[in-house]
Amino acid sequence: MQLALGIDIGGTSTKLALVDPSGNIVARAFFSTVERRDEDDFFHHLFETIEELLNGGEEIKGIGAGAPSANERQGTIENAANLPFSPKVEFGKTLYQRFGIPVHLVKDSNASTLGEWHFGAAKGMENFMLLTLGTGLGCGIVADGRLLGGEFGHGGEAGHVCVQPGGRACGCGRQGCLETYVSATGLKRTVFEIMANSMFDSPLRSISFEAMTARNIFEAASSGDILAKKSFEQTGEVLGLALADMAAWFEPAAVILSGGLATAGDLLFQPTIESLERHALAFHKGKIKVLPSALGENDAALLGAAALVWNSSGTW
Amino acid sequence: MQLALGIDIGGTSTKLALVDPSGNIVARAFFSTVERRDEDDFFHHLFETIEELLNGGEEIKGIGAGAPSANERQGTIENAANLPFSPKVEFGKTLYQRFGIPVHLVKDSNASTLGEWHFGAAKGMENFMLLTLGTGLGCGIVADGRLLGGEFGHGGEAGHVCVQPGGRACGCGRQGCLETYVSATGLKRTVFEIMANSMFDSPLRSISFEAMTARNIFEAASSGDILAKKSFEQTGEVLGLALADMAAWFEPAAVILSGGLATAGDLLFQPTIESLERHALAFHKGKIKVLPSALGENDAALLGAAALVWNSSGTW
Repeated sequence: MQLALGIDIGGTSTKLALVDPSGNIVARAFFSTVERRDEDDFFHHLFETIEELLNGGEEIKGIGAGAPSANERQGTIENAANLPFSPKVEFGKTLYQRFGIPVHLVKDSNASTLGEWHFGAAKGMENFMLLTLGTGLGCGIVADGRLLGGEFGHGGEAGHVCVQPGGRACGCGRQGCLETYVSATGLKRTVFEIMANSMFDSPLRSISFEAMTARNIFEAASSGDILAKKSFEQTGEVLGLALADMAAWFEPAAVILSGGLATAGDLLFQPTIESLERHALAFHKGKIKVLPSALGENDAALLGAAALVWNSSGTW
Repeated sequence: MQLALGIDIGGTSTKLALVDPSGNIVARAFFSTVERRDEDDFFHHLFETIEELLNGGEEIKGIGAGAPSANERQGTIENAANLPFSPKVEFGKTLYQRFGIPVHLVKDSNASTLGEWHFGAAKGMENFMLLTLGTGLGCGIVADGRLLGGEFGHGGEAGHVCVQPGGRACGCGRQGCLETYVSATGLKRTVFEIMANSMFDSPLRSISFEAMTARNIFEAASSGDILAKKSFEQTGEVLGLALADMAAWFEPAAVILSGGLATAGDLLFQPTIESLERHALAFHKGKIKVLPSALGENDAALLGAAALVWNSSGTW
């Protein structure tokens, strides 16, 4: 049986998997990305890990990869803030030259989107969106049966649409971006806003901004802490309104919430769905599903990267 | 030479044109929509007008039509607020039964979008948006070379995305919708807000809310009236921020502004472009063109409707 090699390149680690056409992971490997000096060191480890994986003699049809700051049309990784790379790394060409099989590269958020589409919560859907709620907010959009690209390959930047004119400062230089409210960092900012504006007593008041994590807030909320619960409610309120707008633009059958913050479950999903239903246009009420990832963030990206091998024509 | 029949159904009048494959209008006709009693009366006039147009013996390959509240998949017009119709009118089937040639139906905003795409300002583009700024705000989106549809055929509802949480009440039931700021009505609401908040003297202060038109405001601004000019500046500020968000979502090569308000020219375009460039993400600055319609609102819809005959497979 022919297999595909899926690669998920992240700032902390790079994960690899051999995947069969039904989305079953046959073998896995990973190595540290953060410990690499530069792209040469990265490719050295990548080649070594691939060769170990293929030691069993499996025949692979192609390589699919997801990476931050991927230029999908060129097969390059460009200006990746969290990778130890030069401004422009020829990922596709380098792998093709080494292994002589087709190589496909997409943005990390698109890899996860493809994973959920082919093997996960969005199986068979023509219109859906994936939002990955981590440190920031990543997004992939399938519209009318195709992954949305945009004129320059940067379409679907949901994290940086404005949800509050003149609102919170964002790393991108704009103000009021969705990810400044709806992400692990956004949740923390909301906690500090509520601490400033309210008199609620809370164990979170003893933790500094730098030290506080989304997990602290989740645990406090799970123990019934009002301030922490309110921060999830406000996050859901902002996300639900944004989902109503996404419905007006794209009319997805479902929005899948993935990433660390989405593992908070009902604490996030319930206020989000309530807000969506309150804000949705009349003909969208009750129509847009909000679903958790069926694969988990890691496997979604690996499986989506592998799916490129069977479902994409682009190569370098 | 084979021709296409294009039909643009509006609340005031219904316009028809015979169009050649290059987008030249060979003959025109129209009749009043507002004077029709019901759909039977409408179809009676429509059939009569078509037969007069075809009196010269031209052979037509098919019929394309744009209408408000069109259900593109069913070929029906449903719950059209400004047409004298029953809740569901079988437009496609009725015309096909009468003339025995393919019939295509799209939403009015999509008809104009197709017109600009095939024959106007967006010729050859793979990614663009058309915003029609009239009483409300209509929108059509071409993403990655295809008209955006959405799961239920209501995608691209730009007029009803939220640009100001808790902002102006909208007819749709939401608050802060784009069209409550950026449309002829939105401009007027902005004038009244500025009259309330400022001390600027202005001839507009002698006109009631009911009596005031966008033309009054345009003429005052053209004569140098500060209050009127500020109302255009604020409208452009809101539109430019919205365009920056549209770039984040769809990354269009161009946004075309059409409709009555867009005829204000520099008064609207200049503050809009300034605001877009200020708010755009770094990699979008200087990349998104803001263009006037090349066809005018009426002909764009007629030509786009006709273009369906050559470029679409759907029929009823």
